Amino acid sequence: MNDNNGKLQWVFPDCELPPAGDSLLEGHESIIVLNMNATKATVEFTLYFADQEPIGTISAEVEGERVRCFRLDNPEHLNGYIVPRETQYAVKLVSDVPVVVQYGRLDTRQTNMAFYTTMGLSV
Amino acid sequence: MNDNNGKLQWVFPDCELPPAGDSLLEGHESIIVLNMNATKATVEFTLYFADQEPIGTISAEVEGERVRCFRLDNPEHLNGYIVPRETQYAVKLVSDVPVVVQYGRLDTRQTNMAFYTTMGLSV
Amino acid sequence: MNDNNGKLQWVFPDCELPPAGDSLLEGHESIIVLNMNATKATVEFTLYFADQEPIGTISAEVEGERVRCFRLDNPEHLNGYIVPRETQYAVKLVSDVPVVVQYGRLDTRQTNMAFYTTMGLSV
Amino acid sequence: MNDNNGKLQWVFPDCELPPAGDSLLEGHESIIVLNMNATKATVEFTLYFADQEPIGTISAEVEGERVRCFRLDNPEHLNGYIVPRETQYAVKLVSDVPVVVQYGRLDTRQTNMAFYTTMGLSV
Repeated sequence: MNDNNGKLQWVFPDCELPPAGDSLLEGHESIIVLNMNATKATVEFTLYFADQEPIGTISAEVEGERVRCFRLDNPEHLNGYIVPRETQYAVKLVSDVPVVVQYGRLDTRQTNMAFYTTMGLSV
Repeated sequence: MNDNNGKLQWVFPDCELPPAGDSLLEGHESIIVLNMNATKATVEFTLYFADQEPIGTISAEVEGERVRCFRLDNPEHLNGYIVPRETQYAVKLVSDVPVVVQYGRLDTRQTNMAFYTTMGLSV
Repeated sequence: MNDNNGKLQWVFPDCELPPAGDSLLEGHESIIVLNMNATKATVEFTLYFADQEPIGTISAEVEGERVRCFRLDNPEHLNGYIVPRETQYAVKLVSDVPVVVQYGRLDTRQTNMAFYTTMGLSV
Repeated sequence: MNDNNGKLQWVFPDCELPPAGDSLLEGHESIIVLNMNATKATVEFTLYFADQEPIGTISAEVEGERVRCFRLDNPEHLNGYIVPRETQYAVKLVSDVPVVVQYGRLDTRQTNMAFYTTMGLSV
Protein backbone atom coordinates (compact mmCIF):
# COMPACT_ATOMS: atom_id res chain seq x y z
CA MET A 1 0.00 0.00 0.00
CA ASN A 2 1.22 3.48 -0.79
CA ASP A 3 2.61 4.91 2.43
CA ASN A 4 2.87 8.53 1.34
CA ASN A 5 -0.42 9.54 2.92
CA GLY A 6 0.41 8.22 6.39
CA LYS A 7 0.05 5.05 8.41
CA LEU A 8 -2.70 2.63 9.36
CA GLN A 9 -2.24 2.45 13.15
CA TRP A 10 -1.58 5.22 15.68
CA VAL A 11 -1.06 5.08 19.43
CA PHE A 12 -1.36 7.72 22.19
CA PRO A 13 -0.36 6.35 25.62
CA ASP A 14 -1.06 9.43 27.74
CA CYS A 15 -4.66 10.62 27.60
CA GLU A 16 -6.62 12.26 30.41
CA LEU A 17 -9.68 14.41 29.97
CA PRO A 18 -9.26 17.56 32.12
CA PRO A 19 -12.18 19.33 33.78
CA ALA A 20 -14.07 21.58 31.38
CA GLY A 21 -13.88 24.43 33.88
CA ASP A 22 -15.53 27.83 33.70
CA SER A 23 -13.14 29.73 31.49
CA LEU A 24 -13.91 30.86 27.96
CA LEU A 25 -11.63 28.14 26.61
CA GLU A 26 -12.93 24.82 27.92
CA GLY A 27 -10.47 22.18 28.99
CA HIS A 28 -10.61 19.32 26.49
CA GLU A 29 -8.75 16.67 24.50
CA SER A 30 -8.75 16.16 20.75
CA ILE A 31 -7.51 13.59 18.27
CA ILE A 32 -6.96 15.14 14.86
CA VAL A 33 -7.01 12.89 11.80
CA LEU A 34 -5.77 14.09 8.42
CA ASN A 35 -6.98 12.03 5.49
CA MET A 36 -4.99 13.02 2.38
CA ASN A 37 -6.47 10.22 0.27
CA ALA A 38 -9.14 10.92 -2.34
CA THR A 39 -11.41 8.41 -0.60
CA LYS A 40 -13.11 8.26 2.80
CA ALA A 41 -11.24 6.76 5.77
CA THR A 42 -12.97 4.53 8.32
CA VAL A 43 -11.18 4.71 11.66
CA GLU A 44 -11.64 2.48 14.71
CA PHE A 45 -10.79 3.75 18.20
CA THR A 46 -9.82 1.46 21.08
CA LEU A 47 -9.50 2.95 24.58
CA TYR A 48 -7.23 1.34 27.19
CA PHE A 49 -7.50 1.96 30.93
CA ALA A 50 -5.47 1.28 34.08
CA ASP A 51 -7.85 -1.14 35.71
CA GLN A 52 -10.62 -2.17 33.36
CA GLU A 53 -11.00 -3.97 30.05
CA PRO A 54 -10.46 -1.92 26.88
CA ILE A 55 -13.42 -0.16 25.26
CA GLY A 56 -13.92 -0.57 21.55
CA THR A 57 -13.88 -0.52 18.82
CA ILE A 58 -15.61 2.82 18.23
CA SER A 59 -16.01 3.54 14.54
CA ALA A 60 -15.99 6.88 12.74
CA GLU A 61 -15.33 8.34 9.31
CA VAL A 62 -13.13 11.04 7.83
CA GLU A 63 -13.95 12.27 4.33
CA GLY A 64 -11.28 12.27 1.60
CA GLU A 65 -8.93 15.29 1.51
CA ARG A 66 -10.28 16.54 4.82
CA VAL A 67 -9.02 16.94 8.38
CA ARG A 68 -11.34 16.02 11.24
CA CYS A 69 -10.98 16.97 14.88
CA PHE A 70 -12.47 14.40 17.26
CA ARG A 71 -13.32 16.10 20.55
CA LEU A 72 -12.91 13.37 23.15
CA ASP A 73 -15.28 15.21 25.50
CA ASN A 74 -18.05 15.00 22.89
CA PRO A 75 -19.87 11.63 22.92
CA GLU A 76 -21.31 12.42 19.48
CA HIS A 77 -17.78 12.09 18.11
CA LEU A 78 -17.35 8.65 19.71
CA ASN A 79 -20.58 6.88 18.82
CA GLY A 80 -22.08 7.90 22.15
CA TYR A 81 -19.23 6.73 24.37
CA ILE A 82 -18.61 9.08 27.34
CA VAL A 83 -14.92 9.36 28.27
CA PRO A 84 -14.52 9.61 32.07
CA ARG A 85 -12.92 12.87 33.33
CA GLU A 86 -9.56 12.95 35.13
CA THR A 87 -8.86 9.29 34.43
CA GLN A 88 -5.72 7.88 32.84
CA TYR A 89 -6.37 6.18 29.54
CA ALA A 90 -4.70 5.51 26.18
CA VAL A 91 -5.99 5.50 22.62
CA LYS A 92 -5.24 3.28 19.64
CA LEU A 93 -6.60 4.33 16.25
CA VAL A 94 -6.66 1.95 13.26
CA SER A 95 -7.59 3.23 9.81
CA ASP A 96 -8.44 1.36 6.61
CA VAL A 97 -6.39 3.84 4.56
CA PRO A 98 -3.18 5.71 5.52
CA VAL A 99 -3.79 8.78 7.67
CA VAL A 100 -1.72 11.10 9.90
CA VAL A 101 -2.89 11.62 13.48
CA GLN A 102 -1.99 14.07 16.26
CA TYR A 103 -3.22 14.49 19.84
CA GLY A 104 -3.87 17.75 21.66
CA ARG A 105 -4.98 18.67 25.17
CA LEU A 106 -5.94 22.04 26.56
CA ASP A 107 -5.99 22.38 30.31
CA THR A 108 -7.46 25.60 31.69
CA ARG A 109 -7.33 24.92 35.42
CA GLN A 110 -5.90 27.70 37.63
CA THR A 111 -7.34 30.23 35.13
CA ASN A 112 -4.32 29.53 33.01
CA MET A 113 -4.10 27.52 29.89
CA ALA A 114 -1.56 24.85 29.18
CA PHE A 115 -1.19 22.91 25.98
CA TYR A 116 0.00 19.35 25.66
CA THR A 117 0.51 17.73 22.29
CA THR A 118 2.26 14.88 20.60
CA MET A 119 2.37 13.50 17.14
CA GLY A 120 1.05 9.99 17.25
CA LEU A 121 3.36 7.05 17.25
CA SER A 122 2.83 4.78 14.32
CA VAL A 123 3.69 1.17 15.11
CA MET B 1 18.76 10.75 -2.94
CA ASN B 2 20.92 11.46 0.05
CA ASP B 3 18.64 11.44 3.07
CA ASN B 4 21.02 13.02 5.55
CA ASN B 5 19.60 16.49 5.18
CA GLY B 6 16.01 15.53 5.89
CA LYS B 7 12.91 14.39 4.04
CA LEU B 8 10.85 15.57 1.09
CA GLN B 9 7.34 15.53 2.61
CA TRP B 10 6.11 16.76 6.00
CA VAL B 11 2.66 16.69 7.56
CA PHE B 12 1.08 18.66 10.44
CA PRO B 13 -2.48 17.52 11.19
CA ASP B 14 -3.36 19.99 13.95
CA CYS B 15 -3.15 23.62 12.91
CA GLU B 16 -5.34 26.48 14.17
CA LEU B 17 -4.43 30.13 14.03
CA PRO B 18 -5.18 31.68 17.44
CA PRO B 19 -6.35 35.30 17.86
CA ALA B 20 -3.47 37.77 17.68
CA GLY B 21 -4.68 39.40 20.91
CA ASP B 22 -3.42 42.56 22.56
CA SER B 23 -0.41 41.28 24.45
CA LEU B 24 3.17 42.12 23.59
CA LEU B 25 3.63 38.59 22.21
CA GLU B 26 1.04 38.10 19.48
CA GLY B 27 -0.68 34.76 19.16
CA HIS B 28 0.54 33.08 15.98
CA GLU B 29 1.56 29.87 14.23
CA SER B 30 4.83 29.14 12.44
CA ILE B 31 6.27 26.46 10.23
CA ILE B 32 10.04 26.39 10.44
CA VAL B 33 12.02 24.88 7.55
CA LEU B 34 15.70 24.05 7.86
CA ASN B 35 17.52 23.65 4.55
CA MET B 36 20.94 22.12 5.21
CA ASN B 37 21.68 21.64 1.52
CA ALA B 38 24.08 23.95 -0.33
CA THR B 39 21.30 24.75 -2.80
CA LYS B 40 17.94 26.51 -2.55
CA ALA B 41 14.81 24.51 -1.61
CA THR B 42 11.47 25.10 -3.28
CA VAL B 43 8.64 24.09 -0.94
CA GLU B 44 4.94 23.67 -1.77
CA PHE B 45 2.30 24.03 0.95
CA THR B 46 -1.13 22.37 0.77
CA LEU B 47 -3.75 23.31 3.39
CA TYR B 48 -6.53 20.85 4.33
CA PHE B 49 -9.78 21.86 6.04
CA ALA B 50 -12.71 20.18 7.77
CA ASP B 51 -15.38 21.10 5.27
CA GLN B 52 -13.89 22.62 2.14
CA GLU B 53 -11.56 21.59 -0.64
CA PRO B 54 -7.80 21.81 0.01
CA ILE B 55 -5.95 25.05 -0.79
CA GLY B 56 -2.75 24.82 -2.78
CA THR B 57 -0.20 24.48 -3.71
CA ILE B 58 1.41 27.62 -2.30
CA SER B 59 5.04 27.90 -3.34
CA ALA B 60 7.97 29.42 -1.44
CA GLU B 61 11.75 29.20 -1.24
CA VAL B 62 14.34 28.58 1.44
CA GLU B 63 17.94 29.49 0.64
CA GLY B 64 20.72 26.92 1.03
CA GLU B 65 22.21 26.53 4.54
CA ARG B 66 19.48 28.72 6.02
CA VAL B 67 16.48 28.30 8.31
CA ARG B 68 13.25 30.13 7.42
CA CYS B 69 10.30 30.74 9.70
CA PHE B 70 6.99 30.93 7.83
CA ARG B 71 4.52 32.94 9.91
CA LEU B 72 1.14 31.47 9.01
CA ASP B 73 -0.58 34.72 10.02
CA ASN B 74 1.47 36.64 7.44
CA PRO B 75 -0.01 36.41 3.91
CA GLU B 76 3.29 37.61 2.48
CA HIS B 77 4.79 34.29 3.57
CA LEU B 78 2.06 32.32 1.78
CA ASN B 79 1.89 34.02 -1.61
CA GLY B 80 -0.96 36.23 -0.42
CA TYR B 81 -3.15 33.47 1.06
CA ILE B 82 -4.93 34.53 4.27
CA VAL B 83 -5.30 31.68 6.79
CA PRO B 84 -8.66 31.94 8.59
CA ARG B 85 -8.43 32.44 12.39
CA GLU B 86 -9.71 29.88 14.91
CA THR B 87 -10.37 27.28 12.23
CA GLN B 88 -9.11 23.69 12.22
CA TYR B 89 -6.79 22.96 9.33
CA ALA B 90 -3.78 20.80 8.46
CA VAL B 91 -0.63 21.45 6.46
CA LYS B 92 1.36 19.29 4.05
CA LEU B 93 4.74 20.57 2.87
CA VAL B 94 6.59 19.02 -0.07
CA SER B 95 10.15 20.07 -0.88
CA ASP B 96 12.31 19.40 -3.95
CA VAL B 97 15.34 18.74 -1.73
CA PRO B 98 15.48 17.14 1.74
CA VAL B 99 14.60 19.52 4.58
CA VAL B 100 13.63 19.26 8.26
CA VAL B 101 10.40 20.95 9.37
CA GLN B 102 8.87 21.82 12.76
CA TYR B 103 5.61 23.51 13.76
CA GLY B 104 5.10 26.00 16.58
CA ARG B 105 2.09 27.82 17.98
CA LEU B 106 1.97 30.58 20.56
CA ASP B 107 -1.37 31.27 22.18
CA THR B 108 -1.58 34.35 24.37
CA ARG B 109 -5.25 34.34 25.32
CA GLN B 110 -6.09 34.88 28.99
CA THR B 111 -2.97 37.09 29.22
CA ASN B 112 -1.00 33.93 29.51
CA MET B 113 1.16 32.32 26.96
CA ALA B 114 1.06 28.70 25.99
CA PHE B 115 3.33 26.96 23.52
CA TYR B 116 2.41 24.05 21.33
CA THR B 117 4.94 22.37 19.10
CA THR B 118 5.62 19.18 17.24
CA MET B 119 8.30 17.96 14.96
CA GLY B 120 6.73 17.24 11.62
CA LEU B 121 5.87 13.75 10.60
CA SER B 122 7.66 12.65 7.50
CA VAL B 123 5.65 10.11 5.51
CA MET C 1 8.66 -10.46 17.06
CA ASN C 2 5.46 -8.77 16.05
CA ASP C 3 6.12 -5.06 16.11
CA ASN C 4 2.53 -3.88 15.93
CA ASN C 5 2.20 -3.37 19.65
CA GLY C 6 5.23 -1.12 20.03
CA LYS C 7 8.93 -1.37 20.72
CA LEU C 8 11.18 -2.95 23.33
CA GLN C 9 13.39 0.02 24.28
CA TRP C 10 12.46 3.65 24.96
CA VAL C 11 14.63 6.62 25.86
CA PHE C 12 13.84 10.00 27.48
CA PRO C 13 16.90 12.26 27.67
CA ASP C 14 15.35 15.25 29.47
CA CYS C 15 13.90 14.41 32.86
CA GLU C 16 13.82 16.69 35.91
CA LEU C 17 11.45 16.33 38.82
CA PRO C 18 9.99 19.77 39.62
CA PRO C 19 9.07 20.89 43.15
CA ALA C 20 5.71 19.51 44.25
CA GLY C 21 4.64 23.00 45.35
CA ASP C 22 1.51 24.03 47.22
CA SER C 23 -1.02 24.22 44.41
CA LEU C 24 -3.90 21.84 43.95
CA LEU C 25 -2.08 20.23 41.02
CA GLU C 26 1.27 19.00 42.30
CA GLY C 27 4.31 19.36 40.12
CA HIS C 28 5.39 15.91 38.99
CA GLU C 29 6.74 13.70 36.21
CA SER C 30 5.19 10.56 34.75
CA ILE C 31 6.16 7.79 32.37
CA ILE C 32 3.11 6.21 30.79
CA VAL C 33 3.37 2.68 29.44
CA LEU C 34 0.72 1.19 27.18
CA ASN C 35 0.77 -2.59 26.96
CA MET C 36 -1.51 -3.68 24.09
CA ASN C 37 -0.42 -7.31 24.33
CA ALA C 38 -2.66 -9.94 25.90
CA THR C 39 0.13 -10.79 28.33
CA LYS C 40 1.89 -8.92 31.14
CA ALA C 41 4.92 -6.73 30.34
CA THR C 42 7.95 -6.62 32.62
CA VAL C 43 9.75 -3.30 32.24
CA GLU C 44 13.19 -2.32 33.53
CA PHE C 45 14.06 1.33 34.20
CA THR C 46 17.63 2.67 34.12
CA LEU C 47 18.26 6.25 35.28
CA TYR C 48 21.23 8.24 33.96
CA PHE C 49 22.67 11.32 35.68
CA ALA C 50 25.11 14.12 34.90
CA ASP C 51 27.78 13.20 37.40
CA GLN C 52 27.11 9.82 38.96
CA GLU C 53 26.83 6.22 37.85
CA PRO C 54 23.50 5.07 36.42
CA ILE C 55 20.83 3.67 38.74
CA GLY C 56 19.17 0.43 37.78
CA THR C 57 17.68 -1.61 36.75
CA ILE C 58 14.37 -0.95 38.52
CA SER C 59 11.77 -3.54 37.61
CA ALA C 60 8.00 -3.14 37.32
CA GLU C 61 5.03 -4.74 35.61
CA VAL C 62 2.19 -3.62 33.36
CA GLU C 63 -0.77 -5.95 32.96
CA GLY C 64 -1.92 -7.03 29.49
CA GLU C 65 -4.28 -4.62 27.66
CA ARG C 66 -3.72 -1.94 30.29
CA VAL C 67 -2.05 1.45 30.51
CA ARG C 68 0.01 2.27 33.60
CA CYS C 69 1.17 5.68 34.73
CA PHE C 70 4.45 5.58 36.67
CA ARG C 71 4.66 8.67 38.89
CA LEU C 72 8.38 9.37 39.14
CA ASP C 73 7.82 11.23 42.42
CA ASN C 74 6.32 8.10 43.97
CA PRO C 75 8.98 5.66 45.25
CA GLU C 76 6.35 2.92 45.40
CA HIS C 77 6.28 3.01 41.59
CA LEU C 78 10.06 2.59 41.38
CA ASN C 79 10.75 -0.25 43.82
CA GLY C 80 11.51 2.27 46.57
CA TYR C 81 13.96 4.43 44.61
CA ILE C 82 13.61 8.16 45.41
CA VAL C 83 14.25 10.41 42.41
CA PRO C 84 16.10 13.58 43.49
CA ARG C 85 14.17 16.86 42.86
CA GLU C 86 15.42 19.55 40.45
CA THR C 87 18.20 17.35 39.10
CA GLN C 88 18.87 16.57 35.45
CA TYR C 89 18.49 12.91 34.62
CA ALA C 90 17.45 10.62 31.78
CA VAL C 91 15.44 7.41 31.63
CA LYS C 92 15.80 4.26 29.58
CA LEU C 93 12.99 1.71 29.69
CA VAL C 94 13.40 -1.83 28.35
CA SER C 95 10.40 -4.16 28.07
CA ASP C 96 10.19 -7.89 27.44
CA VAL C 97 7.23 -7.37 25.08
CA PRO C 98 6.51 -4.45 22.72
CA VAL C 99 5.00 -1.42 24.44
CA VAL C 100 4.44 2.27 23.65
CA VAL C 101 5.78 4.84 26.12
CA GLN C 102 5.27 8.58 26.60
CA TYR C 103 6.69 11.08 29.12
CA GLY C 104 4.85 13.94 30.79
CA ARG C 105 5.81 16.67 33.21
CA LEU C 106 3.62 19.15 35.03
CA ASP C 107 5.31 22.17 36.51
CA THR C 108 3.19 24.36 38.77
CA ARG C 109 5.74 26.90 39.94
CA GLN C 110 4.72 30.57 39.78
CA THR C 111 1.13 29.46 40.49
CA ASN C 112 0.91 28.61 36.83
CA MET C 113 0.95 25.26 35.24
CA ALA C 114 3.09 24.27 32.31
CA PHE C 115 3.07 20.95 30.55
CA TYR C 116 6.02 19.30 28.90
CA THR C 117 5.66 16.06 26.99
CA THR C 118 7.33 13.93 24.41
CA MET C 119 6.68 10.58 22.87
CA GLY C 120 9.56 8.34 23.72
CA LEU C 121 12.26 7.66 21.21
CA SER C 122 12.58 4.03 20.33
CA VAL C 123 16.12 3.09 19.40
CA MET D 1 27.53 0.31 14.18
CA ASN D 2 25.21 -0.76 16.97
CA ASP D 3 22.17 1.48 16.78
CA ASN D 4 20.69 0.60 20.15
CA ASN D 5 22.21 3.58 21.92
CA GLY D 6 20.82 6.19 19.55
CA LYS D 7 21.78 7.96 16.36
CA LEU D 8 24.73 9.97 15.06
CA GLN D 9 22.96 13.09 13.74
CA TRP D 10 20.17 15.18 15.27
CA VAL D 11 18.36 18.24 13.98
CA PHE D 12 16.28 20.95 15.72
CA PRO D 13 14.79 23.44 13.24
CA ASP D 14 13.08 25.80 15.69
CA CYS D 15 15.43 27.41 18.20
CA GLU D 16 15.13 30.90 19.66
CA LEU D 17 16.73 32.04 22.89
CA PRO D 18 14.09 33.90 24.94
CA PRO D 19 14.92 36.84 27.22
CA ALA D 20 16.34 35.71 30.57
CA GLY D 21 13.86 37.98 32.37
CA ASP D 22 13.65 38.77 36.07
CA SER D 23 11.74 35.79 37.39
CA LEU D 24 13.21 33.09 39.60
CA LEU D 25 13.20 30.69 36.64
CA GLU D 26 15.25 32.29 33.88
CA GLY D 27 14.13 31.94 30.31
CA HIS D 28 16.54 29.65 28.50
CA GLU D 29 17.05 26.89 25.95
CA SER D 30 18.77 23.54 26.46
CA ILE D 31 19.93 20.65 24.34
CA ILE D 32 20.11 17.46 26.37
CA VAL D 33 22.40 14.66 25.19
CA LEU D 34 22.19 11.16 26.63
CA ASN D 35 25.27 9.02 26.04
CA MET D 36 24.42 5.41 26.94
CA ASN D 37 27.73 4.08 25.60
CA ALA D 38 30.53 3.06 27.92
CA THR D 39 32.84 5.52 26.15
CA LYS D 40 32.92 9.31 25.80
CA ALA D 41 30.97 10.99 22.98
CA THR D 42 32.40 13.93 21.03
CA VAL D 43 29.59 16.05 19.64
CA GLU D 44 29.81 18.85 17.06
CA PHE D 45 27.16 21.61 16.94
CA THR D 46 26.35 23.59 13.80
CA LEU D 47 24.01 26.60 14.09
CA TYR D 48 21.95 27.78 11.10
CA PHE D 49 20.41 31.24 10.79
CA ALA D 50 17.89 33.03 8.59
CA ASP D 51 20.26 35.47 6.97
CA GLN D 52 23.87 34.62 7.74
CA GLU D 53 26.28 31.77 7.15
CA PRO D 54 26.16 28.82 9.56
CA ILE D 55 28.31 28.86 12.69
CA GLY D 56 30.35 25.79 13.48
CA THR D 57 31.37 23.37 14.22
CA ILE D 58 31.42 23.83 17.99
CA SER D 59 32.85 20.78 19.74
CA ALA D 60 31.97 19.36 23.15
CA GLU D 61 32.11 16.09 25.06
CA VAL D 62 29.67 13.91 26.97
CA GLU D 63 31.12 11.26 29.27
CA GLY D 64 30.08 7.61 28.93
CA GLU D 65 26.83 6.59 30.71
CA ARG D 66 26.02 10.22 31.49
CA VAL D 67 23.44 12.80 30.43
CA ARG D 68 24.61 16.36 29.78
CA CYS D 69 22.45 19.46 29.55
CA PHE D 70 23.90 22.11 27.24
CA ARG D 71 22.50 25.51 28.24
CA LEU D 72 22.44 27.47 25.00
CA ASP D 73 22.55 30.75 26.95
CA ASN D 74 25.86 29.70 28.53
CA PRO D 75 28.85 30.40 26.26
CA GLU D 76 30.98 28.08 28.40
CA HIS D 77 28.86 25.21 27.08
CA LEU D 78 29.51 26.24 23.45
CA ASN D 79 33.25 26.86 23.40
CA GLY D 80 32.68 30.58 24.02
CA TYR D 81 30.08 31.15 21.30
CA ILE D 82 27.32 33.60 22.36
CA VAL D 83 23.88 32.71 20.93
CA PRO D 84 21.98 35.90 20.01
CA ARG D 85 18.69 36.43 21.94
CA GLU D 86 15.28 36.47 20.23
CA THR D 87 16.70 35.32 16.90
CA GLN D 88 15.49 32.38 14.84
CA TYR D 89 18.10 29.68 14.44
CA ALA D 90 18.41 25.92 14.05
CA VAL D 91 20.82 23.36 15.47
CA LYS D 92 22.41 20.26 13.99
CA LEU D 93 24.33 17.96 16.31
CA VAL D 94 26.65 15.24 15.02
CA SER D 95 28.16 12.68 17.40
CA ASP D 96 30.95 10.15 16.89
CA VAL D 97 28.98 7.52 18.83
CA PRO D 98 25.19 6.97 18.96
CA VAL D 99 23.39 9.31 21.35
CA VAL D 100 19.80 10.44 22.01
CA VAL D 101 19.08 14.17 22.01
CA GLN D 102 16.13 16.33 23.11
CA TYR D 103 15.51 20.09 23.05
CA GLY D 104 13.79 22.17 25.72
CA ARG D 105 12.86 25.83 26.04
CA LEU D 106 11.52 27.68 29.04
CA ASP D 107 9.94 31.05 28.39
CA THR D 108 9.07 33.11 31.45
CA ARG D 109 7.82 36.31 29.83
CA GLN D 110 4.54 37.75 31.17
CA THR D 111 5.47 36.35 34.60
CA ASN D 112 4.22 33.03 33.34
CA MET D 113 6.18 30.06 32.30
CA ALA D 114 5.72 28.12 29.13
CA PHE D 115 7.56 25.00 28.07
CA TYR D 116 8.41 24.00 24.55
CA THR D 117 10.08 20.71 23.79
CA THR D 118 10.67 18.24 21.04
CA MET D 119 12.58 15.04 20.68
CA GLY D 120 15.23 15.61 18.07
CA LEU D 121 14.77 14.35 14.57
CA SER D 122 17.40 11.89 13.53
CA VAL D 123 18.06 12.01 9.79
